[in-house]
Amino acid sequence: MELLKDKILEQGRIIGNDILKVDSFLNHQLDIYILNEIGKEFKKRFRGYKIDKIITAEVSGIAIAAIAAQYFNVPVVFARKSQSKNLDMETYEGEVFSYTKDKLYKIRISKRYLNSGENVLIIDDFLANGQAILGLKQIVDQAKANLVGVGIVIEKGFQEGGKILREAGINIESLVIVDSMSKGQIIFR
Amino acid sequence: MELLKDKILEQGRIIGNDILKVDSFLNHQLDIYILNEIGKEFKKRFRGYKIDKIITAEVSGIAIAAIAAQYFNVPVVFARKSQSKNLDMETYEGEVFSYTKDKLYKIRISKRYLNSGENVLIIDDFLANGQAILGLKQIVDQAKANLVGVGIVIEKGFQEGGKILREAGINIESLVIVDSMSKGQIIFR
Repeated sequence: MELLKDKILEQGRIIGNDILKVDSFLNHQLDIYILNEIGKEFKKRFRGYKIDKIITAEVSGIAIAAIAAQYFNVPVVFARKSQSKNLDMETYEGEVFSYTKDKLYKIRISKRYLNSGENVLIIDDFLANGQAILGLKQIVDQAKANLVGVGIVIEKGFQEGGKILREAGINIESLVIVDSMSKGQIIFR
Repeated sequence: MELLKDKILEQGRIIGNDILKVDSFLNHQLDIYILNEIGKEFKKRFRGYKIDKIITAEVSGIAIAAIAAQYFNVPVVFARKSQSKNLDMETYEGEVFSYTKDKLYKIRISKRYLNSGENVLIIDDFLANGQAILGLKQIVDQAKANLVGVGIVIEKGFQEGGKILREAGINIESLVIVDSMSKGQIIFR
């Protein structure tokens, strides 16, 4: 997706060797024009599939999923990281290991909002080690829903998540894949 | 907003005397049609005002603000609750007291994404005690931006937030105000 590559080259900031900050448009400030273009592209990549629901994990996936859902005409459910008064007691739970925080946390979706047999598309901002997606997949599996695919805005091709998920047979569409960010230069696949 | 009242009456669940769960369409599962109607209504309520940016706080405000921003044609910035690798070190900070968790937490917006003189609209899902809005207002004030108004989807009129904010001279537009939920019955103002 050329528009997205241009935006990343123009506004992305590389911190160290593996952090790509795109907080000017994707996960702190939100550029609503580019989010709509991302949503249209996801629709294009998953055309021909029957999709009943989009799921994502809080926080950074929410806006991307909500805007994209307009092109699929389906509801979104975002998995919550904390028990909250807004969440039912009866939930499906996935486990996510955070390498940055070196701890395991849970993500949850109320059993009311994910049903057996539903065709689910997962959307998220980044794919790095794949942990968040695996946690969401656990939730989809517990609900006996069908995981149709995973739409990722930016895949870090130099981390192992994409490989793990593809080898597990998951249908992944990454709008851009960054193969390297060494010496401050972004190389796309 | 009659459509929203109908949706609340149809799908809202009252827990105890003061919790109104609308997680079927507003803050866990997201009904994208109603979010668009909410966005249009906010645009109508704030027509005639110059608005440069919409801000909200994670988590529940994000989807509402992102969808609404399409009608204002402005970017969104959502304040983050935790220090994250996606957040700059240089931030404006607001303090929010959580009555449910009985503790004070901070919300932060990077100084890059809120500028002196910008005209800011705050959007959030609920207005109850007003703490989250006051925390966001602290951030707007620190940035020397102008708070044009606050758009709220559901105000709990039986809690003190609306009164505190209006007495502080803040321009609040609540799409619906719930005056009472006793005995399982929702009374709108």
